Amino acid sequence: MERAIYIGRFQPFHCGHEKIIKTIAEETDEVVIGIGSAQKSHTTRDPFTAGERIEMVLKALENFPIRHYIIPIQDVEYNALWVSHVRSMSPKFDVAYSNNPLVIQLFTEAGIEVRRPAMHERDIYSGAAVRKSMIEGDTGEWRRFVPPAVADVIEQVEGVCRIKRVSGNDE
Amino acid sequence: MERAIYIGRFQPFHCGHEKIIKTIAEETDEVVIGIGSAQKSHTTRDPFTAGERIEMVLKALENFPIRHYIIPIQDVEYNALWVSHVRSMSPKFDVAYSNNPLVIQLFTEAGIEVRRPAMHERDIYSGAAVRKSMIEGDTGEWRRFVPPAVADVIEQVEGVCRIKRVSGNDE
Amino acid sequence: MERAIYIGRFQPFHCGHEKIIKTIAEETDEVVIGIGSAQKSHTTRDPFTAGERIEMVLKALENFPIRHYIIPIQDVEYNALWVSHVRSMSPKFDVAYSNNPLVIQLFTEAGIEVRRPAMHERDIYSGAAVRKSMIEGDTGEWRRFVPPAVADVIEQVEGVCRIKRVSGNDE
Amino acid sequence: MERAIYIGRFQPFHCGHEKIIKTIAEETDEVVIGIGSAQKSHTTRDPFTAGERIEMVLKALENFPIRHYIIPIQDVEYNALWVSHVRSMSPKFDVAYSNNPLVIQLFTEAGIEVRRPAMHERDIYSGAAVRKSMIEGDTGEWRRFVPPAVADVIEQVEGVCRIKRVSGNDE
Amino acid sequence: MERAIYIGRFQPFHCGHEKIIKTIAEETDEVVIGIGSAQKSHTTRDPFTAGERIEMVLKALENFPIRHYIIPIQDVEYNALWVSHVRSMSPKFDVAYSNNPLVIQLFTEAGIEVRRPAMHERDIYSGAAVRKSMIEGDTGEWRRFVPPAVADVIEQVEGVCRIKRVSGNDE
Amino acid sequence: MERAIYIGRFQPFHCGHEKIIKTIAEETDEVVIGIGSAQKSHTTRDPFTAGERIEMVLKALENFPIRHYIIPIQDVEYNALWVSHVRSMSPKFDVAYSNNPLVIQLFTEAGIEVRRPAMHERDIYSGAAVRKSMIEGDTGEWRRFVPPAVADVIEQVEGVCRIKRVSGNDE
Repeated sequence: MERAIYIGRFQPFHCGHEKIIKTIAEETDEVVIGIGSAQKSHTTRDPFTAGERIEMVLKALENFPIRHYIIPIQDVEYNALWVSHVRSMSPKFDVAYSNNPLVIQLFTEAGIEVRRPAMHERDIYSGAAVRKSMIEGDTGEWRRFVPPAVADVIEQVEGVCRIKRVSGNDE
Repeated sequence: MERAIYIGRFQPFHCGHEKIIKTIAEETDEVVIGIGSAQKSHTTRDPFTAGERIEMVLKALENFPIRHYIIPIQDVEYNALWVSHVRSMSPKFDVAYSNNPLVIQLFTEAGIEVRRPAMHERDIYSGAAVRKSMIEGDTGEWRRFVPPAVADVIEQVEGVCRIKRVSGNDE
Repeated sequence: MERAIYIGRFQPFHCGHEKIIKTIAEETDEVVIGIGSAQKSHTTRDPFTAGERIEMVLKALENFPIRHYIIPIQDVEYNALWVSHVRSMSPKFDVAYSNNPLVIQLFTEAGIEVRRPAMHERDIYSGAAVRKSMIEGDTGEWRRFVPPAVADVIEQVEGVCRIKRVSGNDE
Repeated sequence: MERAIYIGRFQPFHCGHEKIIKTIAEETDEVVIGIGSAQKSHTTRDPFTAGERIEMVLKALENFPIRHYIIPIQDVEYNALWVSHVRSMSPKFDVAYSNNPLVIQLFTEAGIEVRRPAMHERDIYSGAAVRKSMIEGDTGEWRRFVPPAVADVIEQVEGVCRIKRVSGNDE
Repeated sequence: MERAIYIGRFQPFHCGHEKIIKTIAEETDEVVIGIGSAQKSHTTRDPFTAGERIEMVLKALENFPIRHYIIPIQDVEYNALWVSHVRSMSPKFDVAYSNNPLVIQLFTEAGIEVRRPAMHERDIYSGAAVRKSMIEGDTGEWRRFVPPAVADVIEQVEGVCRIKRVSGNDE
Repeated sequence: MERAIYIGRFQPFHCGHEKIIKTIAEETDEVVIGIGSAQKSHTTRDPFTAGERIEMVLKALENFPIRHYIIPIQDVEYNALWVSHVRSMSPKFDVAYSNNPLVIQLFTEAGIEVRRPAMHERDIYSGAAVRKSMIEGDTGEWRRFVPPAVADVIEQVEGVCRIKRVSGNDE
């Protein structure tokens, strides 16, 4: 039995994340999904609370073909402590999936194997692009980039209105 | 659909917790289980990390007749912020279960309904009693108070040795 | 023009505090009243929020014969920083009034003059005694120890019920 | 009786703030003035300590036709906690005045009414403009934008020299 | 070349510490001396600042027959992060010396070898005993338990007066 | 006997720092070298841990003609507390050396004398330039700007690889 960890900010959880988790599901047995920067919310870059992001991931992965655990991970301001922090908050894991250079470096220095998942259409499937579309668009085009269940969560919390407002673009 | 939250330190998760969650399962549809004081570990009162406690709860509730989410909740030093903190970290909930006077007061002041689960044989099924038995006992009697899956997790992390040592009782 | 600072936790503001401020009013021109441990609330020892304590002091000192400023002062965990912290949060002051040994030592090491106000009937007029009376008493005797305006604030926030509950005495 | 809260960084308190408080005085009975980012000082953007800013506001509003309370409010790094933090530090309030998009969003989500005061000549009466004038100007033109009492406080603490130096423009 | 780490609070540095470092000097090549709880001072249990304790150790170990480095180590509130914290603050080390059960447990779980130095006359040579003697004694008997250079530092900072006062025993 | 303090981030320690300390050695008797932002590491701007930087300074100053103490200094987020923080962490000092405008302002406001060391070829001997050379260069030209002992430390910790990776330039 091999258990992986995959950490992202998921602001919001989009189809690129979904594809990566599908890949992980093919390569390993269980996956811990870490909601990074869990304490952040209500900013242009981090609009959603950890709780809202947990709901997104939960619903998007419902009936997904891999056992998964979802845990919020608050930042520690201190990179040298980050791996110990993740380890103490998470069920044990054997391998990490990441394309983030800092995460790769920190796990590698700590002796943890890191695999880099292929990224599909990174320019489209990126949190930044989805947030930009929410802030600037009026047509709801952002829905195309997220699983339907995620779009539902965003609507329930009036997320588009929130990100428009905190980005100052609602004036 | 009603979703409850039930927060405990689960140091460790014991049969009293299990009974309470069974009660909750009868009264509501889904339950968020919050691992309180998530940042604490390696002390006499808080021997296990959040990750270890998540594993305990996961395994103890496997095949349990209620949909449940397990989330670590770090302390905020500031009681006036605690309810907002829990809300931001958790999927939305409708009602809280607790017998902790402070938790009851804080949720009540915030306008959240609190239900008090009946506690069974509180003197036996208490975290303090289990930890005392781990520290002082040599016969493994503590196993009687926790679900078998929890005992397995404790053994894997050599938890009895750890609590004995950090309590200074191993000299 | 001489301005003093007088720092207390004011949990709650009682007649002993009032007497001390009367003394200060006779000896100096203006007084900054610092609400110490401002971030604490909802515990047996610190039941009231900073905002509630500000209201107590405001109302108790209404029409008081000295110009006064009320500022909340959050703790810094670090004694060596405390004087700089107070100085940065407060309008400038020339002298401090205190009977707290740590406060006296810290201000003195920083070269700030400290005066020790006489304390009247310290066993009666102490925050601990008032809180004990709130928790244990049923007759509202605690009202005798606080200015009437303070009793009003405590009632508005249902403070007796709160302290009874968080002290665990409500079971 | 209606009490409002109005929160700003007041780096420094300028005539635009004064006008807004005049408006608030016409519309409500009492106002809590929150000194935001209270812990910050000695930077180009936040040159003055909370204590210095309290003195500015105190003196500028002396004899002002509305009862006002001035309280420093330290940042919480965590937007989801901010409203609870403000509430715990402040006397109770009924309505908030703000033109800050984040503040509006956070208060609104918490169910607190927000009113947007008209802003007068925003390009002139802005903290950024006043600070720029202090750093770059030699003629003391910045005085035109602040109440005379505020200019006095800034001079007493040698504020222009400080902001010039920390902005690195004094080389 | 083998480098050890030895961490203590050194409140104050006493002859027992000196003996232990002598032992370490016989067994290894270099030693990092970590000043634990570096951020604490001005309490009965932690009277001296990190800077003062560094001066004590520096002077006591002057001309000591082992190369040593002295570094202050602030607490992290979080035991699971402590080893990573120490490692990031210290020059690399190969082995730790400690008799503290928690330190032993944490280093051991992290795979670091721990050696337990023999303790000499632990009842006499303990920080608690020295502090008690400072607080209660009038004869300066505490000097017998610390190296002469340490007594000098304590006198320069008027340490006995400070600990008497903050312990409330000076009334 | 005069003791100076000289604080830098030393990311990494380079020949410009070495020249400044030579100057200090000519003008004073002892020097405390403070490793600023000690808690930071693994970023483009702050690649090295405090422990690694201590090793750099230790080795670079071995046999240097001035007694020196090396202490890590973690940031306090709060400028108004910074001087008290440094004082509590450091052995007593009489004078500070700095060319940093904020440091100069803070020490000056606290009544501490500040001397500005001449800087030699600042465009070459700057941490930013050395880091840029590490990230972009392939020829090891960065070695020219640091003492040989520092280059050794950087190699031992595979520092060039680390900074390349965390800067995202390794893709």
